[in-house]
Amino acid sequence: MTRERDLVTILPEGRTIQAARGEILADILTRAGMPLSLYCHKRGLCGKCLVQVVRGDLPLPDDLERTLASRLSWPTGYRLACRLTVESAIAIEVPERSLLREVPILETGTSTEVIPEPAAKKYAVDGRTFAADRAASLFDALAAALGTGALSCKDGVLGKLPGLAGGTFTAVVYEDRELLDIEPGDTTDLCLGAAVDLGTSTVVVDVLDLVSGRSLGRASAVNSQAAYGADVVSRLTYAFERPDHLQRLRRAITRQLAELIREASGQAGDSPAALRDIVVAGNTAMNHLLLGVAVESLAVLPFEAVFSRLGPLDAAAAGLDLPAAARLYVVPNIRSFVGGDITAGLAASGLAKRKGSWLFIDLGTNGEIVLKKGRELIAASTAAGPAFEGMNISCGMLAVRGAVDRVAWRDGFVLSTVGNDPPRGLCGTGILDVLALAVGHGLIAPDGKVAGPARSLSVGPGIALTQADVRNVQLAAAAVKAGVRMMLREFRVRPNDLDGVLLAGAFGNSVNIDHAMQLGLIPVLPLDRVAFVGNSSLAGAKKLLLSAPARAEAEDLVGRIRHFSLAADARFQDEFIAALEFKPDAGGES
Amino acid sequence: MTRERDLVTILPEGRTIQAARGEILADILTRAGMPLSLYCHKRGLCGKCLVQVVRGDLPLPDDLERTLASRLSWPTGYRLACRLTVESAIAIEVPERSLLREVPILETGTSTEVIPEPAAKKYAVDGRTFAADRAASLFDALAAALGTGALSCKDGVLGKLPGLAGGTFTAVVYEDRELLDIEPGDTTDLCLGAAVDLGTSTVVVDVLDLVSGRSLGRASAVNSQAAYGADVVSRLTYAFERPDHLQRLRRAITRQLAELIREASGQAGDSPAALRDIVVAGNTAMNHLLLGVAVESLAVLPFEAVFSRLGPLDAAAAGLDLPAAARLYVVPNIRSFVGGDITAGLAASGLAKRKGSWLFIDLGTNGEIVLKKGRELIAASTAAGPAFEGMNISCGMLAVRGAVDRVAWRDGFVLSTVGNDPPRGLCGTGILDVLALAVGHGLIAPDGKVAGPARSLSVGPGIALTQADVRNVQLAAAAVKAGVRMMLREFRVRPNDLDGVLLAGAFGNSVNIDHAMQLGLIPVLPLDRVAFVGNSSLAGAKKLLLSAPARAEAEDLVGRIRHFSLAADARFQDEFIAALEFKPDAGGES
Repeated sequence: MTRERDLVTILPEGRTIQAARGEILADILTRAGMPLSLYCHKRGLCGKCLVQVVRGDLPLPDDLERTLASRLSWPTGYRLACRLTVESAIAIEVPERSLLREVPILETGTSTEVIPEPAAKKYAVDGRTFAADRAASLFDALAAALGTGALSCKDGVLGKLPGLAGGTFTAVVYEDRELLDIEPGDTTDLCLGAAVDLGTSTVVVDVLDLVSGRSLGRASAVNSQAAYGADVVSRLTYAFERPDHLQRLRRAITRQLAELIREASGQAGDSPAALRDIVVAGNTAMNHLLLGVAVESLAVLPFEAVFSRLGPLDAAAAGLDLPAAARLYVVPNIRSFVGGDITAGLAASGLAKRKGSWLFIDLGTNGEIVLKKGRELIAASTAAGPAFEGMNISCGMLAVRGAVDRVAWRDGFVLSTVGNDPPRGLCGTGILDVLALAVGHGLIAPDGKVAGPARSLSVGPGIALTQADVRNVQLAAAAVKAGVRMMLREFRVRPNDLDGVLLAGAFGNSVNIDHAMQLGLIPVLPLDRVAFVGNSSLAGAKKLLLSAPARAEAEDLVGRIRHFSLAADARFQDEFIAALEFKPDAGGES
Repeated sequence: MTRERDLVTILPEGRTIQAARGEILADILTRAGMPLSLYCHKRGLCGKCLVQVVRGDLPLPDDLERTLASRLSWPTGYRLACRLTVESAIAIEVPERSLLREVPILETGTSTEVIPEPAAKKYAVDGRTFAADRAASLFDALAAALGTGALSCKDGVLGKLPGLAGGTFTAVVYEDRELLDIEPGDTTDLCLGAAVDLGTSTVVVDVLDLVSGRSLGRASAVNSQAAYGADVVSRLTYAFERPDHLQRLRRAITRQLAELIREASGQAGDSPAALRDIVVAGNTAMNHLLLGVAVESLAVLPFEAVFSRLGPLDAAAAGLDLPAAARLYVVPNIRSFVGGDITAGLAASGLAKRKGSWLFIDLGTNGEIVLKKGRELIAASTAAGPAFEGMNISCGMLAVRGAVDRVAWRDGFVLSTVGNDPPRGLCGTGILDVLALAVGHGLIAPDGKVAGPARSLSVGPGIALTQADVRNVQLAAAAVKAGVRMMLREFRVRPNDLDGVLLAGAFGNSVNIDHAMQLGLIPVLPLDRVAFVGNSSLAGAKKLLLSAPARAEAEDLVGRIRHFSLAADARFQDEFIAALEFKPDAGGES
């Protein structure tokens, strides 16, 4: 008789694992730290935890496993770890494909990893093994086959059930408790989702395979609401000018989203009908306009958001015209000026799980600052204006071909451009470089005054910064600097105590950290404590699309993050004036 | 110092209740068995647990209670039991209106009581006390004000929030977790629901006040689907003749329901806009047609229902055109031939909670039989045909004016009619009376043969039962008798061991029990063990409308009730033949 230990040997390594007689193999392997794929939560539905039994006596497979084995044509000796009770010593090999692998989520300059555990899943069901005569109805029989006690159902799905229940069909299940749809045949190899970065200027849609986590296609465009106003404020104003304006803005973005989703799905040759889940990360205003929710409260004091956490919505009800039923998850807003894009960024950068004190800064028209201190999370926002995006700068432009994005100094400015095209203007990172170098070389005084009678700084052929341009950057930088300083002081964190600063937003990963520190935009820290998280909004949308547990963590984060109102604090104006000076912020002295 | 006992004295009785110092008064009173109204679950929102404090020192009311007190203009000395911490001895009076009273639900011949605890509730909120600056958004502030952690929201409600949040408004909340709607002002005094008996022949709608449980209006009509087929089979056939037929049937009934709901609401002078919840009890086929779900599987072997338990639906999405957002709860079907009407009947009659062994029989075109034995519940159905409704009887008619509904014997038949009108024909109860009396007086043989050469039994002027009529009743009765006998035998219950028989359905409460026993339709039992539960379907719909806990119990019942397939059992035909004879069923001999 085998002793109740060393029951499972894993080949080829030969590692042995102790187990109690009668334990399920999947539980044994999971306990031993093996990242076994348990997509269907050990319900014997997906066949993804297949192992090869090399040695040992085995109980016979049950009906469920036999059916699955014949449908998926397993070779002899392969068994489902989640259905196998270990009664005596066995030796197994675990195929690579039965192991979960973290999927890297790459955006410009940031990398985050996630184990796919999507909200939308597919399970193939053999309708011929259906025992509706033992269940109250076909729907109950399906719920039993899916191993879910309380399955709810979208209107219209039920009607498809009788026609499909005679053969193999695929159930699309959301959060393991809602039947979203059923499809004829076994379509489990294709279940798509879309991650959306819903920016005020640009909309980016990434279509992902929800099972493997791979990106399959991308489409982007200028936000079609731009026709009604370039920035948030003008769009909000337009929205409450007339009752139908809000709906016009809504229709513009929902149509565009549906188009971009179709386009990105098509790139991999996949039908958008396989798309079942959409995660949108946008700022609070964009999220409100997307759902057609009145925005008056966002535009007037005390600037209140109407919603924050909403849970998954019905995509069709939200106005997205897609070929199949899908869910729409709007990443929760933290506050009126700290939106779902920041929540997504925090999720992507894993801020809440980092040890120590961290600062997350998203630089854009609105500068959002999140301070993490121990278990505390505090968010604030500060109005920077569009200078960082090159928008109110005479020679400013977006970081497209011909934009000067990096500037060095060799007895004068040396310009690099996007695509190595002839320089046409400065984008945000180029502007910062020029300013830092100009201050360093005395072309601009620390108080922002441009040297020389013309009060204009020539950067290259046809490109110059005017005094007004410098003032605009100065104001934008001061807003962020003052915000950071206020928060650090309020919550008693010295800049030097920061374990790191994460920079997200407009600059992407190409900003020169040293220059940003010289201008005081971020506190002076060893360079290795500053990291770029690039388009963390899109990265976060992808992470939340691929992982339902990450979604739960993000909701929890939004529930406990505190908001620190900079504008309401009288000291902010003082801090702002002091921050106007271009100089490094070493902390403490101010 | 007061000892930690006898802290609360209830006047005028003078009864004292022990309590620990620091306990909440509502908890003390509830523990002492006082049925205190806790509509808002002790969240201080509804003001329904008001008590008068006659003696004793009290802590000051908190902000929430003060706001409520000023809005509802309480006299001095009144306090909310759910917000009052008892620190020293007090004497109180509990006003009658602060106590829950069971609401009797009366239908023909049946009475059941229920404590209102509806799924749809209204809470008034003072928007001016809103602290959205402390919550993430207006919606979060509302969720906090309602004391619900995870509040979800119907599309379209959010848009109303900014406009109303400045003053007093009313939140319509479903199952204490979904914000169904918001309304300006305090409308908590009017929250309506509709209970619907969705019969194949007749549709009855009762509109109730969900707070008090009072019936406010009733409307009924012939099921508008009757234009496409008088009975279930012809309607199912029509439904799958052409794809658009199913939707035509759906539209017919959804339009009619919306109309009847408006009509019944209007009777009490109330706006149907106050209607927020609808409970429909129908047979499985009617429920499928109501939701536009394909009915093929109901019409062909093995006769499978597509759905059973669905949870609450969105009334508008289900096609009901009503002036305000409402929920639609379709009482769950047990099986293809045992529908939500039976589930409702079981809920109304409290079958599952009765002690011992009980039989529930619903007599109609389909005879549904439910046997309760100990904790076991078994359901079966048997095809009786429409004879009990007087439908395939030459002189048969529904129980309307002029129908003979009771027959006695004084040297011949003595007829009573509905409305005392001249007799025009026989309804179900009249037919049973005539048959029992005819068999008893030798005018019809126990084998059903009508005496005399004409093979016709004259009942009154122009009213006679033909041999074919008698055969039709004989077949209908045999189907039910055989079903009851099979079930009793299968589950080892002797008729005499039955603690009672509950009769529901076509006969209402006017059938002569003695006659039914003489014909063998129900087992011979002491008369006091047989009860009529009349239109238990409507009574059940009302109960489930008024009580969310009763709904949970009904769902649980449907989940555990077993189905016994009579048709699939070879012995049924033997039992059926034997049951054709008109004779009392004393049990055991067969």
